[in-house]
Amino acid sequence: MLEFCLMKTQSSEYQKGLALLETLHGGQSGEQLVQSLEDICPDFVSMTLEWALAGIMGRPGLDLLTRELLLIASCTTIGGSADPQLRAHTDAALKLGATREQVVETVLQMLFYAGGVNVSNALRSIKEVFKLHQI
Amino acid sequence: MLEFCLMKTQSSEYQKGLALLETLHGGQSGEQLVQSLEDICPDFVSMTLEWALAGIMGRPGLDLLTRELLLIASCTTIGGSADPQLRAHTDAALKLGATREQVVETVLQMLFYAGGVNVSNALRSIKEVFKLHQI
Amino acid sequence: MLEFCLMKTQSSEYQKGLALLETLHGGQSGEQLVQSLEDICPDFVSMTLEWALAGIMGRPGLDLLTRELLLIASCTTIGGSADPQLRAHTDAALKLGATREQVVETVLQMLFYAGGVNVSNALRSIKEVFKLHQI
Amino acid sequence: MLEFCLMKTQSSEYQKGLALLETLHGGQSGEQLVQSLEDICPDFVSMTLEWALAGIMGRPGLDLLTRELLLIASCTTIGGSADPQLRAHTDAALKLGATREQVVETVLQMLFYAGGVNVSNALRSIKEVFKLHQI
Amino acid sequence: MLEFCLMKTQSSEYQKGLALLETLHGGQSGEQLVQSLEDICPDFVSMTLEWALAGIMGRPGLDLLTRELLLIASCTTIGGSADPQLRAHTDAALKLGATREQVVETVLQMLFYAGGVNVSNALRSIKEVFKLHQI
Amino acid sequence: MLEFCLMKTQSSEYQKGLALLETLHGGQSGEQLVQSLEDICPDFVSMTLEWALAGIMGRPGLDLLTRELLLIASCTTIGGSADPQLRAHTDAALKLGATREQVVETVLQMLFYAGGVNVSNALRSIKEVFKLHQI
Repeated sequence: MLEFCLMKTQSSEYQKGLALLETLHGGQSGEQLVQSLEDICPDFVSMTLEWALAGIMGRPGLDLLTRELLLIASCTTIGGSADPQLRAHTDAALKLGATREQVVETVLQMLFYAGGVNVSNALRSIKEVFKLHQI
Repeated sequence: MLEFCLMKTQSSEYQKGLALLETLHGGQSGEQLVQSLEDICPDFVSMTLEWALAGIMGRPGLDLLTRELLLIASCTTIGGSADPQLRAHTDAALKLGATREQVVETVLQMLFYAGGVNVSNALRSIKEVFKLHQI
Repeated sequence: MLEFCLMKTQSSEYQKGLALLETLHGGQSGEQLVQSLEDICPDFVSMTLEWALAGIMGRPGLDLLTRELLLIASCTTIGGSADPQLRAHTDAALKLGATREQVVETVLQMLFYAGGVNVSNALRSIKEVFKLHQI
Repeated sequence: MLEFCLMKTQSSEYQKGLALLETLHGGQSGEQLVQSLEDICPDFVSMTLEWALAGIMGRPGLDLLTRELLLIASCTTIGGSADPQLRAHTDAALKLGATREQVVETVLQMLFYAGGVNVSNALRSIKEVFKLHQI
Repeated sequence: MLEFCLMKTQSSEYQKGLALLETLHGGQSGEQLVQSLEDICPDFVSMTLEWALAGIMGRPGLDLLTRELLLIASCTTIGGSADPQLRAHTDAALKLGATREQVVETVLQMLFYAGGVNVSNALRSIKEVFKLHQI
Repeated sequence: MLEFCLMKTQSSEYQKGLALLETLHGGQSGEQLVQSLEDICPDFVSMTLEWALAGIMGRPGLDLLTRELLLIASCTTIGGSADPQLRAHTDAALKLGATREQVVETVLQMLFYAGGVNVSNALRSIKEVFKLHQI
């Protein structure tokens, strides 16, 4: 658990976001996300938990795995700026049960939209995440 | 059928791409796509059919509807340049059986990646496609 | 007042956002913003009011006019996708007392960051907003 | 000639830029460029003539036609924001003697860099410029 | 002083730009900027000093601190490509007397325009500049 | 020769692409490109060879050197995401006989399109490629 976050008085949205962070980016990467932003702008951590996670990611209408694949598509389209996020969402997709093939196909599907530069860079990044998952 | 295209000698990839174009963008929009590019650069039409459609869209590993949602995510992330494509893929997703909610959630999921400007513009565009589908 | 919005049960953040919308984009443009998105995704209207307006725009630390100039800078950098937003924030800046020179200088300051294409397009857009303000 | 510009006291760089504007975008389009920006920010017109035209475009090391093809490549890569500029530089390239094929190949070369969305939109734009040149 | 630059015959714009460089990025970072570009393209150093610094940054109509905040907004919007420039302008803003809060709020204001990916990356970068300033 | 690629059954387009890869990025860099993508997505290697190289780069209508300069222009416009590709195409342009001046002018020509941030970063990158070529 991300215990250090629990010491603050938190809204139910904050708690819901924290639970989603634990599910999707639990362990070291989630804790690192929070810690790296906690001192520079603690409100941004709350916004991430309450808005991006509880408010968007936690909505009904699409399952979590589909949402993660959509974020992988978006990060591939954004390119280099979103490389840390591409890796985090690849990690989350695999945790949720995505196959290697599903992630590769998601990136490859971007070829005529994000361009080959972004796709080839993204393939190299997800390869490293696959290695960490030993797949 | 897009008959005017069949008069050329075509590779099997071209035929496969044409069938996918018919499935996804059949009727007026597919024909318009081909015709608007046929005279300026006929090879680009072949590339679209053989590479983007047969070569990428037609791959196994992800179903067509998921691929269309991924393209909606990418078009929302690209922004205004991809507005015609956003509308075409929204149309295709609905033809493949996507619900209104699935498309809206796909666009909304982009909020913290593509930004609010792109999401609000994309919501206005898909609204117009929904109207054409009378949903 | 944007009366049609008041019929819903609204959080205090929603009310605060609505008041800011009235201040910055009051009259026709604010109402149009809400109405154009109300039926396609009412939750996005809430997010805009509660998160973007009350949650970000309404924060202390920078005055509203500086925030509007920063948004004009960002919209100029984004380019064509953010043209409607560039016009809305130019309108808001003028309402808050910005001079014509402050807005022009903000756009011009982007020349070596957003590039000349985006700056020349932005200058043409703000010119039309100036005309509506008869300045 | 763009006579209305000559009434100002102008640096030699301004004069050199004006001559290049006449060569590349002479007639209606050059005059329109200057007039559309003259009242909103006359200094931006000077910057365009002195910096972008005399200062960059007029440098030795690459001929004017190659420079125009490079700008067509850049405008295709930028996408929709640079559509007016894409058309202006296509027009300039044709005036400098570019063939239809050279311009089409320049746009097509961007496929794996700018992506298919930008290339297909650019092809439709240059087609309209070709029509104006009756080629 | 950046003495090595003074050996060239320089326009008054060049001198004005050099003085501004000294004010905003004086010491190691300004010298590094000039030296890293001096041998690959000395004319680009002149363009930076005469056009970007003397010609744009040095204009009346907005004070230097506001201009630096606008550049921080633009760099955040551009994303990873502008990370070195984001750090340089954060450093310059602090030298001009900006508070930590003003810089953080400038970056945070970009959330619904530049997106959360760019904002979270920018927050991590300005945090490192704050550390160098021991604030 | 990139021998390890020849063991697969390959289309004539694949062979043509491999020959172009050898011409443009031969030696270590071409081999590295193929190897870094071979295990994560071998089909992407085929797409690069058959589509991007044989299908686009190998077309008539523009010579290879002009095509490389166009790609340098596009990579400069894309910015940081395309930095590895900018270096690879600078290397290829020099192999094809481009002068140092032609490459510098190509990058500099992007100033009012890609912006000064991208141009200054690109100049620093090509400087390193020039060093490797000892020019």
